[in-house]
Amino acid sequence: MNQQLTNRLGLFFALICLYTGAIAQPPRGPLVVSPQVNADKTVTFRYLSPTAKEVKLSGQFLKAPVEMSKNAQGIWSVTSEPVKPDIYPYSFQVDGVTVMDPANVAFFPNERFKASLVDVPGDTPLVHAMKDVPHGSINYEYYPSLEGTTGSLVVYTPPGYDQNPAKKYPVFYLISGTTDTEETFFKVGKTNLILDNLIAEGKAKPMIIVMPYGNMAARVAEQKGGAKPADPTVRDGADAVKRANDFATDLVSKVIPYVEKNYRAVANRESRAIGGFSRGGGQTLRTAFGNLDKFAWVCSYSSYLSPAEMDQNFPHIGGKPETTNKQLKLFWVSVGSDDFLYKGTVEFMDYLKAKNVVFKSLITDGGHTWMNVKKYVAETAPLLFQ
Amino acid sequence: MNQQLTNRLGLFFALICLYTGAIAQPPRGPLVVSPQVNADKTVTFRYLSPTAKEVKLSGQFLKAPVEMSKNAQGIWSVTSEPVKPDIYPYSFQVDGVTVMDPANVAFFPNERFKASLVDVPGDTPLVHAMKDVPHGSINYEYYPSLEGTTGSLVVYTPPGYDQNPAKKYPVFYLISGTTDTEETFFKVGKTNLILDNLIAEGKAKPMIIVMPYGNMAARVAEQKGGAKPADPTVRDGADAVKRANDFATDLVSKVIPYVEKNYRAVANRESRAIGGFSRGGGQTLRTAFGNLDKFAWVCSYSSYLSPAEMDQNFPHIGGKPETTNKQLKLFWVSVGSDDFLYKGTVEFMDYLKAKNVVFKSLITDGGHTWMNVKKYVAETAPLLFQ
Repeated sequence: MNQQLTNRLGLFFALICLYTGAIAQPPRGPLVVSPQVNADKTVTFRYLSPTAKEVKLSGQFLKAPVEMSKNAQGIWSVTSEPVKPDIYPYSFQVDGVTVMDPANVAFFPNERFKASLVDVPGDTPLVHAMKDVPHGSINYEYYPSLEGTTGSLVVYTPPGYDQNPAKKYPVFYLISGTTDTEETFFKVGKTNLILDNLIAEGKAKPMIIVMPYGNMAARVAEQKGGAKPADPTVRDGADAVKRANDFATDLVSKVIPYVEKNYRAVANRESRAIGGFSRGGGQTLRTAFGNLDKFAWVCSYSSYLSPAEMDQNFPHIGGKPETTNKQLKLFWVSVGSDDFLYKGTVEFMDYLKAKNVVFKSLITDGGHTWMNVKKYVAETAPLLFQ
Repeated sequence: MNQQLTNRLGLFFALICLYTGAIAQPPRGPLVVSPQVNADKTVTFRYLSPTAKEVKLSGQFLKAPVEMSKNAQGIWSVTSEPVKPDIYPYSFQVDGVTVMDPANVAFFPNERFKASLVDVPGDTPLVHAMKDVPHGSINYEYYPSLEGTTGSLVVYTPPGYDQNPAKKYPVFYLISGTTDTEETFFKVGKTNLILDNLIAEGKAKPMIIVMPYGNMAARVAEQKGGAKPADPTVRDGADAVKRANDFATDLVSKVIPYVEKNYRAVANRESRAIGGFSRGGGQTLRTAFGNLDKFAWVCSYSSYLSPAEMDQNFPHIGGKPETTNKQLKLFWVSVGSDDFLYKGTVEFMDYLKAKNVVFKSLITDGGHTWMNVKKYVAETAPLLFQ
């Protein structure tokens, strides 16, 4: 689709918006349907570009990008082999440029890349499927954060929350990965639908889930400075531990009080869980180990801390395992066997074993993906607050 | 940014995710900061592509796309002239391919195109600016819709909603344009922030705002058939009136009962407003004129019905103006002087005048844009429920 985002004479919207109630209907290209999930689990992807020389499909269900071919209308398409039911990120490579699927509103919220999502349903509905069960609600909230800035949260309230004004709920703080946003557990992880389904089956307790934005430092810089740092070569990561500490400070001193004031949350450590994926898993471990008076349930998805950091910053975890084991009602570590963090995670588990720290673990197939994250959330949510 | 969405050996996320807690830090490209709004209201845009031959910036603040230039790192950039404060859609044209800004999470939810958003703040905060005022909440909801399908809503509840469990609120049903989604009034229109600010200043009454998805027919087809219609040449628009009627049926028989059951809404016509932009404005007019027992406040933003359709389908509006004028506590019509629907909207206003139907109107500069929609919402919200 070739839309020129110019404002001249209002032509931009004239070209792309069809005002169906009006007599004047400005021209636009053919309607492109993409992705189209077929009954045999193959998926047809389409992309309109009469002028492109080469269009490929990339997707996390593919081993390598595949060529698409163009019809007389200029619509490129390809139909995949049957795909294992799940939700996968994908994108198009148009003459080497990575683009989202313009015809698809399902997207992957992220700071560094843009991808669309394709949902291949199972013959038996998967744990994240939209089912005819009572649904909770997703709430976007603003809260007063550190340094006078305003932070954002996505909050899941379980089915029945509004109908039971006297009932209080435990809270699961759930932190997404590097370059993800506070929306990623909702839009990609389908955490709300997973919980709706588990709660409907009686497998998980009704709980509130609070999804903060992990990259607090960037937000503070943006709001305080009026702009993000200008030097495009600035790399984050060098001060990762400091940033994790800032994140923990914000979570404990700002987010938790906001949530417990504005939601009907049970305000004690036995009713607070914390979990996270990738960088969010590192933030989870650091926040939990530094605040064991605040959290009793800890889930690390595809993440770990090094033995050196454990010994230096959290010696009490391995040093007094009987206390750790008593305090942590759940300590969960999971990773995929193809994850680039697999080796480090195994070392972390070996460290914990050597120190007699009790934890539950799950090694799955696959890599550092949100297909795995959904699995981990579905496995751990039933264990919380039981 | 060139990320291959392959899953092989987990390399996809290894390349794009920096796990800051781990020893292993897989390589990724330089951090690209974009957009960067400068103090003098110029904006610097950046896009990483060492291999592209030509990159241009398109934006609704520009008369025409502008060339970007590449540095030694492969980062293309351009700094604009000073931009009039507002929120604008923009995109990059990379070797002729339209792409969102990978470094920017602010996006334009739409079914047919992908654009990013740049927010140029005013020296005095604009009506949609994030201010230090009490904030309402945005809620994503699922509701049982027509034909056994599940529909989605975005719902704004005003500041204090959760703190005043006895208070009931009027409801504004607000419908976005063709190819927009239920998120567009939130993500692009900043309707929540506009209302937060107007309510804080005492200019608007606290109200609930319900934002449905306008393209109900597509959703029903998708959920019933397992896939959208396969033929990429199928055009919508031919049965626009039927679709508008289906939309009205869903809104009146499904959405309103869901909202009035699950939110503390005042359930009478004097406490229901309806408004919409573009196709959503057409749906607004048809839904309101066909259900005057349900709505007393009607706002048409950049949209109209033809005199022929008015005479044929809604003869009572112009036929009994004294009844219409008594029933409609507000009838608002606004459009931009550069809007491609300007002429039709003026004809609509002329028709109403000739029929002695009372309405308020506002003609603004500019075209069929969300810069104008924000203006119209800010102008009309203070008039509702007064």
